[in-house]
Amino acid sequence: MAKKSFPLGKVYGLFEPGPVILLSTTGKKRPNVMALSWQTMLDFEPPLIGCVLGGGSLSFKLLQAAKDCVLNIPTAELVGQVVQCGNSSGVRTDKFRKFKLTAVPAEKVSAPLIGECYASVECRVVDTGMVDAYGFFVLQAVKAWVDPQVTAPKTLHHIGDGRFMIAGEIIRTGSKMR
Amino acid sequence: MAKKSFPLGKVYGLFEPGPVILLSTTGKKRPNVMALSWQTMLDFEPPLIGCVLGGGSLSFKLLQAAKDCVLNIPTAELVGQVVQCGNSSGVRTDKFRKFKLTAVPAEKVSAPLIGECYASVECRVVDTGMVDAYGFFVLQAVKAWVDPQVTAPKTLHHIGDGRFMIAGEIIRTGSKMR
Repeated sequence: MAKKSFPLGKVYGLFEPGPVILLSTTGKKRPNVMALSWQTMLDFEPPLIGCVLGGGSLSFKLLQAAKDCVLNIPTAELVGQVVQCGNSSGVRTDKFRKFKLTAVPAEKVSAPLIGECYASVECRVVDTGMVDAYGFFVLQAVKAWVDPQVTAPKTLHHIGDGRFMIAGEIIRTGSKMR
Repeated sequence: MAKKSFPLGKVYGLFEPGPVILLSTTGKKRPNVMALSWQTMLDFEPPLIGCVLGGGSLSFKLLQAAKDCVLNIPTAELVGQVVQCGNSSGVRTDKFRKFKLTAVPAEKVSAPLIGECYASVECRVVDTGMVDAYGFFVLQAVKAWVDPQVTAPKTLHHIGDGRFMIAGEIIRTGSKMR
């Protein structure tokens, strides 16, 4: 794996721009993966991330059971797999195998990293107080991995109806804004 | 104003890609505005949006008091104002006046729209259950406005340390994914 350990204090910069995420979970039968756009940072350090999962989904059940997951960030060349993951259920489909994704063992959680994604953040569920109302899980990042060669990742940003915006140019404002 | 009424059922597509937002509030003295990247959709319709505001900020207090706000989405030409709004406090500064932003009366809430932003969504606070823990307000969109001439908005996406990714090209996958 080309990914290297990444400082937890910088994790917010991975999620703030709003990329589509592939959320991987472990399960008794096999691991699963879903596509997710409804996520936000909640705190810098330790990094807390809030994610919304549909209540009927297999990933929802697996996340509730295992209490951990990996948030993987795909780039544009994986758009086919992102759409396939988003439009299928892991109940009948082994998504890792069918969509040619590589499950890589994590260091601190039971869910696997996705080898093809440039960034993967191992997370534990730390607050389920808003799961009943909104399917909103509060996750704490416990270990992060990023491919250091990817300095301007072409992340995917869903804009509805199966359309995606691909990350464009980066500008530096010199602001002290964290 | 070039913005027209926009269907509430399509509001999710404005926030899913993760743009920086200018959150405007009303106040006894004057309206205020802050820059915000920590937001997520929570439901499609009625559209629910979760936003994280720092507990010490003026906007936090104004939002708690008035129980409504407008989420305005700026595009790249406003990056200077976004940084200025993010690096100053409304306690001493009239940000609308100082940063040359136009406060336009909203239809359903007391907070003003920002005329220069291509999209503005009027919101009411509907759940404060996670405000103490995370500064996380649940907002319901009650009226949305978008400039119909802006079909591929060059939105700003903060990636940390004052750097922004500008929205790039749009691809259509033909997916039925909502």
